[in-house]
Amino acid sequence: MKVLGIDPGTAACGYGIVHGSDGRLRAVASGCWRTSPRDRLDARLLTLFEGVRALIAEHEPDAVALEESYVGADARIALSVGQARGAVLVAAAAAGLECAEHAPARVKQTVCGYGRADKSQIQRMVKLILGLDEEPANSHIADAYAVAISHALSSPLVGAQR
Amino acid sequence: MKVLGIDPGTAACGYGIVHGSDGRLRAVASGCWRTSPRDRLDARLLTLFEGVRALIAEHEPDAVALEESYVGADARIALSVGQARGAVLVAAAAAGLECAEHAPARVKQTVCGYGRADKSQIQRMVKLILGLDEEPANSHIADAYAVAISHALSSPLVGAQR
Repeated sequence: MKVLGIDPGTAACGYGIVHGSDGRLRAVASGCWRTSPRDRLDARLLTLFEGVRALIAEHEPDAVALEESYVGADARIALSVGQARGAVLVAAAAAGLECAEHAPARVKQTVCGYGRADKSQIQRMVKLILGLDEEPANSHIADAYAVAISHALSSPLVGAQR
Repeated sequence: MKVLGIDPGTAACGYGIVHGSDGRLRAVASGCWRTSPRDRLDARLLTLFEGVRALIAEHEPDAVALEESYVGADARIALSVGQARGAVLVAAAAAGLECAEHAPARVKQTVCGYGRADKSQIQRMVKLILGLDEEPANSHIADAYAVAISHALSSPLVGAQR
């Protein structure tokens, strides 16, 4: 089972693809799209949409997974995250893939064994679980890998490992 | 000049297309997509994306216009509106159209001559400006027409009417 995990954001949007088989998870690809606040909003969102579409075409994942958005007090940030999520969700749905949403605490519990793990713990555990040579380059990629791992391990096909 | 105006929302998303020529504006098409909270979020956003895409293919507007989002105190609502906006903006951008954003006060000022006009005033003025037989069926359609009118009248090609 192959899962594309995404950490949606307009300025920086991380992705990580994991493949699970025989109770083992391995990393397939990862990266981070960055867009400039100087560019038009529609062009920035199109970058995310086209990016997700190209990844799905190249890697043919079985599922796409996102963290449920933590909605803080700032409605302005929520609007911006919402726009990025809209672009990503539509790209997945247009490719015929369902987008699974996992609560942040569930992702942390699965990856770190602790629902309130901090960013550095997530980066360390993602490296360990996927057997990477180095920790992911930034927290966007680590968070994207983490939600992909969480979704892969919740699948009956891979979950024996959990 | 033909403008597709959209009032983005996940549960109800209004659209109105206006055509301006010889200093006159007329209505081309309008409607409202509704999606159920019982459906998956990605499927609901795909309905908006596909709807915008189909309208653009059928009517070939020169521009798409949206109101800048009023960001209230509720971050949960802002996230939801953001997701709908993301789906709409991506559909326009993927079709090669720029999405213009107009501040709500500017739209009201243009359509009603008063930046704090209420919903019933907007519905009346939209009917009058476009020469409709009846007021738009709901405020989503009226708001979509209003932002389309605002954008069409800001164009040098049509604006002589203003």
